[in-house]
Amino acid sequence: MLLGSIEAGGTKFVCAIGTEDGKILDRITIPTRTPDETIPEVIAFFRKEKISALGIGSFGPIDVKKNSPTYGHILKTPKLPWQNYPFLQTLQDALEVPCGFTTDVNAAVLGEYVYGAGKDADSCLYVTVGTGIGAGAVFRGELLEGMSHPEMGHIIVRKSPDDPFEGVCPFHRDCLEGLASGPAIEKRWGRKGAELADEKKVWELEAYYLAQAVVQYTMILMPEKIIIGGGVSNQAAIFPLIRRHVREMINGYITAPAVDEKISDYIVSPGLRGDSGIVGGLVLAKRALEQAG
Amino acid sequence: MLLGSIEAGGTKFVCAIGTEDGKILDRITIPTRTPDETIPEVIAFFRKEKISALGIGSFGPIDVKKNSPTYGHILKTPKLPWQNYPFLQTLQDALEVPCGFTTDVNAAVLGEYVYGAGKDADSCLYVTVGTGIGAGAVFRGELLEGMSHPEMGHIIVRKSPDDPFEGVCPFHRDCLEGLASGPAIEKRWGRKGAELADEKKVWELEAYYLAQAVVQYTMILMPEKIIIGGGVSNQAAIFPLIRRHVREMINGYITAPAVDEKISDYIVSPGLRGDSGIVGGLVLAKRALEQAG
Ligand SMILES: Nc1ncnc2c1ncn2[C@@H]1O[C@H](COP(=O)(O)OP(=O)(O)O)[C@@H](O)[C@H]1O
Ligand SMILES: Nc1ncnc2c1ncn2[C@@H]1O[C@H](COP(=O)(O)OP(=O)(O)O)[C@@H](O)[C@H]1O
Ligand SMILES: [Zn+2]
Ligand SMILES: [Zn+2]
Repeated sequence: MLLGSIEAGGTKFVCAIGTEDGKILDRITIPTRTPDETIPEVIAFFRKEKISALGIGSFGPIDVKKNSPTYGHILKTPKLPWQNYPFLQTLQDALEVPCGFTTDVNAAVLGEYVYGAGKDADSCLYVTVGTGIGAGAVFRGELLEGMSHPEMGHIIVRKSPDDPFEGVCPFHRDCLEGLASGPAIEKRWGRKGAELADEKKVWELEAYYLAQAVVQYTMILMPEKIIIGGGVSNQAAIFPLIRRHVREMINGYITAPAVDEKISDYIVSPGLRGDSGIVGGLVLAKRALEQAG
Repeated sequence: MLLGSIEAGGTKFVCAIGTEDGKILDRITIPTRTPDETIPEVIAFFRKEKISALGIGSFGPIDVKKNSPTYGHILKTPKLPWQNYPFLQTLQDALEVPCGFTTDVNAAVLGEYVYGAGKDADSCLYVTVGTGIGAGAVFRGELLEGMSHPEMGHIIVRKSPDDPFEGVCPFHRDCLEGLASGPAIEKRWGRKGAELADEKKVWELEAYYLAQAVVQYTMILMPEKIIIGGGVSNQAAIFPLIRRHVREMINGYITAPAVDEKISDYIVSPGLRGDSGIVGGLVLAKRALEQAG
């Protein structure tokens, strides 16, 4: 049996065919233009193979409430051609297979939970630090979802007194995403993150903000694992800095070893490297098939 | 069938007998001294009536992990006679009925979810603002729990530039609890909260901090309802101030009506008034009985 997976991002769509145990057999990358240009290519790719179900992890915000009239749509987004686009319905109508639909980070956390860094944990959180910051979490095997999917990139952080940068979030200016996303780094320091590898103060400040995010996620959710992915996390030197800040910030209040001597197993890189989302889409597809009966 | 419920707080234990549909029939209050003094009185109360199960909502931190060797114990607490006390086991051995065990705020959120302000929601969060600040959340009918119960009172908040107060949290100084709990208000302003009702700037500042907590809980959890209880929430004037700050802070980023025109239904007082926890204990007892088969 073959399953399909889509990782729909703001710059590119990754489409893959895989197996029910999370192996990817084939994949293509399609640039994100308008739905009219991009989606037919996506559909053509999946029509080549006989897939039994499809899992979609999409950029957001999206409507994930199954009882909503706009379930499966992309909501208010700066990418205007995609606004109100019935993403799920279009694919479901064209391919006529059960489809799962969630955010890109929810797909990623599912992939990591089942096959990656979270595979031995009962709960885990995946946060991506890239063009934006977003996170998803799994508890008892299920994605965390209330009135909507989480928006964990837009939490409030405390500004470093040494950081005069005003932030880049168009809604909140200096929320976490506004201060610590890839574009925030680039705007603050005048160069892209990848070119700043040797600038210690860049990563010290970045770690300070990401550690605050880890502390908030920990105090509120207590996941068994926090997985940090996305372009900015390629700066591997940031992990020990984040861990040090987190320990200092928690300051012994939580006695669990995960946030103390075992913190290297708590704050980790993705087990599936860049494939968390696309593998998570296969998990989503499998679950959609099971639910369809 | 009768069920028992305990709301175990730092100053008093409330013990109640009730029905499986959440009605309280009898209750007593016992001061919290040492376990040797307090617990025999608790046991005696429940032995008078034939209860079929017991639900315990306890001050914390406590061990809620069922597979842990110290499951049911109180952990590291400043109330030294209670440190490492096997609370659950002692009650279970004495009363020989199925017992549920969770934090005081988890019991409260269960009570509110089943019978109170959250009874029409799929998910909700209850935060108490009293001597300490703590919260619990229910998603898909289950308490949110990862490596431990949440510690939502100790999140990081951004300090108001107009607030020189250094905070009272012994671990973090100026975390949410350190800046916004009842004792923080009393220390900052030199009088108890109840005596400061007419001081507008007190509640403006308090609302600013509590609104930040609501924003963090919203971005991370997206509960359908946020219920604010505890002594400080008796200042009813604080609710409109919190709602105003929350809308300003979210600034249109989340389009759900709950955080916009319907915010008066999102941030609410407890439906069970002061009984959220003790009624939640009855829910816990009922669930323990069901699980015992
Ligand atoms: N090695 C790196 N070090 C620091 N920042 C990086 C690195 N690689 C990519 N980035 C930054 O990450 C962002 C892109 O994130 P990425 O996760 O790759 O894509 P997206 O978030 O768009 O899916 C850009 O802002 C880029 O500057
Ligand atoms: N009406 C009120 N207005 C403001 N603060 C109050 C009020 N009543 C109690 N408090 C404060 O709330 C705290 C007690 O919280 P409460 O929820 O009653 O008990 P606990 O948290 O100990 O279970 C104290 O710090 C007290 O000063
Ligand atoms: Zn933001
Ligand atoms: Zn604290």
